[in-house]
Amino acid sequence: MKHTLIKDLLNSTKTLHEVTAKGWVRTFRNNQFIALNDGSTIHNIQCVVDFENTAEATLKRITTGTSVAVTGELVESRGSGQKYEIQVTKLEILGDSDPEKFPMQPKKHSLEFLRENAHLRIRTNTFGAIMRVRSALSFAVHQYFQQKGFYYVNTPIITGSDAEGAGEMFRVTALPFENTPKNEDGTINFKEDFFGRETNLTVSGQLEGEAYAMALGQIYTFGPTFRAENSNTSRHLAEFWMIEPEVAFNDLADNMDLAEDFIKYVIKYAVENCSDDLKFLETRLLDEEKQKPLAERSEMALLEKLSFVLDNNFKRVSYTEAIDILKDSTPNKKKKFQYLIEEWGADLQSEHERFLVEKHFKCPVILFDYPAKIKAFYMRLNENTEPGKETVRAMDILFPGIGEIVGGSQREERLDVLIEKMKTLGIHEEELWWYLDTRRFGSAVHSGFGLGFERLVLFVTGMTNIRDVIPFPRTPQNAEF
Amino acid sequence: MKHTLIKDLLNSTKTLHEVTAKGWVRTFRNNQFIALNDGSTIHNIQCVVDFENTAEATLKRITTGTSVAVTGELVESRGSGQKYEIQVTKLEILGDSDPEKFPMQPKKHSLEFLRENAHLRIRTNTFGAIMRVRSALSFAVHQYFQQKGFYYVNTPIITGSDAEGAGEMFRVTALPFENTPKNEDGTINFKEDFFGRETNLTVSGQLEGEAYAMALGQIYTFGPTFRAENSNTSRHLAEFWMIEPEVAFNDLADNMDLAEDFIKYVIKYAVENCSDDLKFLETRLLDEEKQKPLAERSEMALLEKLSFVLDNNFKRVSYTEAIDILKDSTPNKKKKFQYLIEEWGADLQSEHERFLVEKHFKCPVILFDYPAKIKAFYMRLNENTEPGKETVRAMDILFPGIGEIVGGSQREERLDVLIEKMKTLGIHEEELWWYLDTRRFGSAVHSGFGLGFERLVLFVTGMTNIRDVIPFPRTPQNAEF
Repeated sequence: MKHTLIKDLLNSTKTLHEVTAKGWVRTFRNNQFIALNDGSTIHNIQCVVDFENTAEATLKRITTGTSVAVTGELVESRGSGQKYEIQVTKLEILGDSDPEKFPMQPKKHSLEFLRENAHLRIRTNTFGAIMRVRSALSFAVHQYFQQKGFYYVNTPIITGSDAEGAGEMFRVTALPFENTPKNEDGTINFKEDFFGRETNLTVSGQLEGEAYAMALGQIYTFGPTFRAENSNTSRHLAEFWMIEPEVAFNDLADNMDLAEDFIKYVIKYAVENCSDDLKFLETRLLDEEKQKPLAERSEMALLEKLSFVLDNNFKRVSYTEAIDILKDSTPNKKKKFQYLIEEWGADLQSEHERFLVEKHFKCPVILFDYPAKIKAFYMRLNENTEPGKETVRAMDILFPGIGEIVGGSQREERLDVLIEKMKTLGIHEEELWWYLDTRRFGSAVHSGFGLGFERLVLFVTGMTNIRDVIPFPRTPQNAEF
Repeated sequence: MKHTLIKDLLNSTKTLHEVTAKGWVRTFRNNQFIALNDGSTIHNIQCVVDFENTAEATLKRITTGTSVAVTGELVESRGSGQKYEIQVTKLEILGDSDPEKFPMQPKKHSLEFLRENAHLRIRTNTFGAIMRVRSALSFAVHQYFQQKGFYYVNTPIITGSDAEGAGEMFRVTALPFENTPKNEDGTINFKEDFFGRETNLTVSGQLEGEAYAMALGQIYTFGPTFRAENSNTSRHLAEFWMIEPEVAFNDLADNMDLAEDFIKYVIKYAVENCSDDLKFLETRLLDEEKQKPLAERSEMALLEKLSFVLDNNFKRVSYTEAIDILKDSTPNKKKKFQYLIEEWGADLQSEHERFLVEKHFKCPVILFDYPAKIKAFYMRLNENTEPGKETVRAMDILFPGIGEIVGGSQREERLDVLIEKMKTLGIHEEELWWYLDTRRFGSAVHSGFGLGFERLVLFVTGMTNIRDVIPFPRTPQNAEF
């Protein structure tokens, strides 16, 4: 008999004479009550087993993790907490789960233990909820851009370019480490490699995205990006997913509007479509924070925090204003910052961003017009700045508890200014000949940004370690599974 | 003034007093008529320039590829072929395009020339159409699965596993080629590499997808996959995008149903949402085929071919039946096949698949129940087969002109059978300990498949070289851009 998803059974509008459910046993109480989960929802369906007419040997095999098929009547539940339950008439064990060996027993496991069992942690309520929310957020990303007439573009993962400078890159090669082909001068002969040149994993699809925006108008990417940086923190991954929209004819103000509207749309989508999972994650977070001293607990519960973001404008603050605020701030005067802010031009550290977002403004903040010196070569140089205080039309969006979630800019559309900037930084024109072509032929004002998808998932789920919001995290010394 | 997308101007329900459009000049006729395109649609909007009151120098700068902003009245067009045009009152040149240098002149370019200019080919009608269709198909993939309650899972791109065996892999490393760290026995010390082990680019997310399906029930992946194979053909890429659904409790028949329903849904979505682009591509294909001898031309025009797939059931044929058909076929008897089919067990080559699909059945074909020996270790072994004629519950979907577009199977859910199979093939249990855990704890029947996204885009767009349906193709000796 065809089975029905547990989500659909629990959402049924009436009792049903005969239904079949298939899933994994979460708990089995009193030799009678199976809490069955099939991943379609965080909720289990209670399956009431006729234990008097079921073989003892079968009952013994019903343990946490066992896969079963149950058939029976969908009736109103006499127990509390669920509307319907299944009065089981037929029970089939599909796959056993030795309780002595199955690691995911119904008790509290440390997140670190669960990371070591990333293939099984998805069978817990917490990770089921996180990954369903992640899936909903992914879809919201596509739906938002497609409804607005943006085209999805797959920029290359393997790239011959290393000029983008967003971070350290991984090498991709088919050459052997032993007897590597060499040139006459003893250097490695990359002509013999698969692509006939040195290749790396992409750190950003932006430059290729720009080329596409200069033809399709409005595009977005959503794909994996990589950093070979030895950052063993709760905010960094060596492999993560990034969303990069790029829009022809948008200036920096349009870019900020787009980013804010986009972020609110996807959060709203999750709030509206994942309420059960988010309620569970909210409770989980409250429980977790009970262990912490009062001062370290969140001021708002998870759903309240999400509503707050939806209901309030992001605060737009120029870098120059931000520096003034930071210079005058108590932690700066009392020398509590690790990096004291002494003058205009300083790069902002995580501690400064957190102060601005969490202490000063207490809301998401868009910082813009950064010093040219601390930002990338492709960002649009502002006119009429004081010498030594040149700024670019960059923007970063900072979120409470997360830090930078978006980095973007209006792009330098003027060929001569761009070439001059590249020269200063030692980036060879020949290497980016095709990128420069976009400024040679029908150049135009355009803007875009990158949003680190896992940071968004962190924010929406209330998790605190980025390794817990991607199925199989890749970090220094870890590529298991 | 805010500009409006050309798509929206052309779809306007009334004339408008003042509108602004921004885009790139496709052609400029009689010093008066600009055909302007902004990528939002394949159609240009005609902009009528008041040439008597426009400076000669400005008019000279309006050439193919130039980026301009035009403001004026949206009026009913007196010319044929368009409903509306803009009577320009204000014209601004945003970015010049030197006609001596801009490679995308309004004439016929070879596809090979366009590949060498992958950053600019998107400014042609053909590639604009292809990439808009590609984007629509991507969205249809997500919409189909999300509506059916599947969860999107991002399986890892960098993997420590090389046991999947779908093909040759690229190495990912942060180790240098010079002075590579070595163990005492002279081998490379991968403990010193970024991940502390050898790592590669994924060839498939299936195994990780299975682990997720055994908890979330219904999942799909959609991400880049890689093959380090020196296949310089029109059907292979070193980097391509793959869609891999995996469903708990589905058997092979369910799997075939899902694949067929899915493919029809996404094709239907493209037909309904990309009619202008598909009509253009249909005409393009007809023109191209005029160069060919009659016998080599397609029997159906593009849209007719797509309708045919939507309206007909895919033919389901067992491997054994297919072998009988092939053995008795004219090309086999006349020794026209390069690889003659002599006995059961032979691996099917592209020539055989094409014969079955294009000559014999003349419709999409699902081949199933392949000999165990020619298929992967994780496929479900059929019971009750003759010794020496063991089969597995594999399925391949073959499309006319494309060949294999889907490969899938019911998975081997029995731990002992799976381990035995791995032993035979020399795959170490320790390497796939986590995959075996999915069979150790609550194992269940489950199935899935992989669909090569670019092959689908090829089929829907009627293009014939896979390098023309991905923005920046990666092939042997080519990783430009």
